[in-house]
Amino acid sequence: MSRSPRVEIEYCTQCRWLLRAAWMAQELLTTFVDDLAEVALIPGTGGIFEVRLDDQLLFSRKEMGRFPEAKEVKQLIRDKIDPQRSLGHSDR
Amino acid sequence: MSRSPRVEIEYCTQCRWLLRAAWMAQELLTTFVDDLAEVALIPGTGGIFEVRLDDQLLFSRKEMGRFPEAKEVKQLIRDKIDPQRSLGHSDR
Repeated sequence: MSRSPRVEIEYCTQCRWLLRAAWMAQELLTTFVDDLAEVALIPGTGGIFEVRLDDQLLFSRKEMGRFPEAKEVKQLIRDKIDPQRSLGHSDR
Repeated sequence: MSRSPRVEIEYCTQCRWLLRAAWMAQELLTTFVDDLAEVALIPGTGGIFEVRLDDQLLFSRKEMGRFPEAKEVKQLIRDKIDPQRSLGHSDR
């Protein structure tokens, strides 16, 4: 049973992106320690690296042609779950 | 929307166990690269460190009085999802 707000990070196992995905998960859980119900790491294939919030796509490596920075993912999540909140240096 | 088999690792944020939880998640996703649909990291409180498989409790720090070893969590998961499988050095 999953909880909300839930972040999903789907990463390509063939590309060996687990470490990137796990790093991003830790960044998000550190910043949103009281605001996220869970972060799920989801093994995928075919060059996928996607970040979703409650099934809504926040970032897709395929669409953007690059990996997301932690800062921009944090801003995207903040904008959805707590728009008034300042992220400190991640807002600059 | 969560998927199955799903592993949940709920950890106490006050105790700063995120790093342990994230390490365990990576161990499991590395060993069961084609067999787990997701591993969810769930922030908790009050000294919790629990590992669950599809909502079934596999390991509780409170019950056992210690942290789980990666090896024993892998054995517990293997026994549920693929009992015939050898885990190599994690079975010795």
